[in-house]
Amino acid sequence: MELLDGRSLANELTQAQQMAVTQLKQQGIIPKLVVIMVGTDPASTIYTKNKQKRAAKIGIASELKQLPDETTATDLLALIHQLNEDATVDGILVQLPLPKQINEDQIIQAIDPQKDVDGFSPVNIGKLWLNEPGLVACTPNGIMQLLAAYNIDIAGKNVVIVGRSNIVGRPLAALMLNANATVTIAHSHTVALKALTKTADILIVAIGRARFFGVDDVKKGAVVVDVGINRLEDGSVTGDVDFEALKTHVSAMTPVPRGVGPMTITMLMAQTIEIAKGRAKRG
Amino acid sequence: MELLDGRSLANELTQAQQMAVTQLKQQGIIPKLVVIMVGTDPASTIYTKNKQKRAAKIGIASELKQLPDETTATDLLALIHQLNEDATVDGILVQLPLPKQINEDQIIQAIDPQKDVDGFSPVNIGKLWLNEPGLVACTPNGIMQLLAAYNIDIAGKNVVIVGRSNIVGRPLAALMLNANATVTIAHSHTVALKALTKTADILIVAIGRARFFGVDDVKKGAVVVDVGINRLEDGSVTGDVDFEALKTHVSAMTPVPRGVGPMTITMLMAQTIEIAKGRAKRG
Repeated sequence: MELLDGRSLANELTQAQQMAVTQLKQQGIIPKLVVIMVGTDPASTIYTKNKQKRAAKIGIASELKQLPDETTATDLLALIHQLNEDATVDGILVQLPLPKQINEDQIIQAIDPQKDVDGFSPVNIGKLWLNEPGLVACTPNGIMQLLAAYNIDIAGKNVVIVGRSNIVGRPLAALMLNANATVTIAHSHTVALKALTKTADILIVAIGRARFFGVDDVKKGAVVVDVGINRLEDGSVTGDVDFEALKTHVSAMTPVPRGVGPMTITMLMAQTIEIAKGRAKRG
Repeated sequence: MELLDGRSLANELTQAQQMAVTQLKQQGIIPKLVVIMVGTDPASTIYTKNKQKRAAKIGIASELKQLPDETTATDLLALIHQLNEDATVDGILVQLPLPKQINEDQIIQAIDPQKDVDGFSPVNIGKLWLNEPGLVACTPNGIMQLLAAYNIDIAGKNVVIVGRSNIVGRPLAALMLNANATVTIAHSHTVALKALTKTADILIVAIGRARFFGVDDVKKGAVVVDVGINRLEDGSVTGDVDFEALKTHVSAMTPVPRGVGPMTITMLMAQTIEIAKGRAKRG
């Protein structure tokens, strides 16, 4: 089995990104990412810190706009409009979830689609399905990069995606379809799920159930991409598939951790740099 | 077998639409659809005429903006901007294809998403995939209405869509997924296509190959929706499935013609009326 080593690829890409940023700075452009966080959700605090750390490592200017829990939609929209207008800001990311008084859809739609580094705005999702250039959600984008780095063929393959979230399953379906895969999207309403997963040449699971899929549920020689992150009672982290059992059964597989996870933040940086390159070109 | 009679349903809906328009007129609102056609493509001429005829029948004001073949993108964009600003215009439809000097994507993106009755703009496609309210492509929309009218269950069903166009396959996949189907999208790169179509509880075919799918390719008791329109040498029209052969094999099926076809234009009128209702509400 080939290990689809997201951490190792992320490290390589990070080095290339450092060089790209150095070149941009020589042109007088400093890529800049602004992360907006409302409230003090502990998980969000960790995620935003990780994003800032990675940005700093690469040389991307990052700014955390930390707003109080009781922030109104009006205040948040005003900030987003200001950042939309600010020519020195390349990427704008609103850390989700937002407090209940704020409509997330409305906020995401307010971000300039050209600065929407998370690729969550309707315009970018529409472009993705139209197979037009645009910004793409980072986790699916990272999965495609990881498969490409290991020369995994996609065209004509049966790809089964388990999970239909807006941030993983749906955009990944578009990317896979655009790459000429035959794509099936399964979810909580799917009947005979494990018979379906067994038909997949490439199986992508994102349901958040520890070791839910085993040898009997996966085709011999399949490629498995595990997006699940499940914390066990002993504190360890495991994916949605039984990695140990599948090791001798599949042809390639992502580990958890160090598989898909490290790619997500790497794609966030990649898109921020791409936007900054566009700014450099426009002069 | 139950015949999924699109013509009959379209006729019913047209009557309901006439009443809805009458009510709107009593509120001083005349729903208005503007169709823009560039050049003199014979097929487009027929389609636009049919749209105008149907609009007239329902009481929707329709206007055909017929532009010469050599129209520039700039001219067309200027017209669209003017129609976007015109408060009396509810729906704007640009008849495709456009002449080669004009970038279709750019034109579609210029239409106010709230007047985009074809549902082709990135914003509306994005909202569709986000399962948010928006305007939806008329053929897939018509298919969903047809299945609903015949009480065909969708949740948990294996839906196989053959064809991944922007106007049928892709948006239909979103609608089916939003309706909790397990959705597979197949296309020209799909391997073992006919083994796949045989797994479908609901099979939707849109590939434009006359009678391509027969009894061996369809599950016994399946529901078949045939979007194909193929003209045979004798001048008759047939779908992508062998209707006669499947009659005793499937549980429900659309005929061709008089199946999906009549629903498309009906959905166009429905969306124009819905937009006008929004205008009436805003006062």
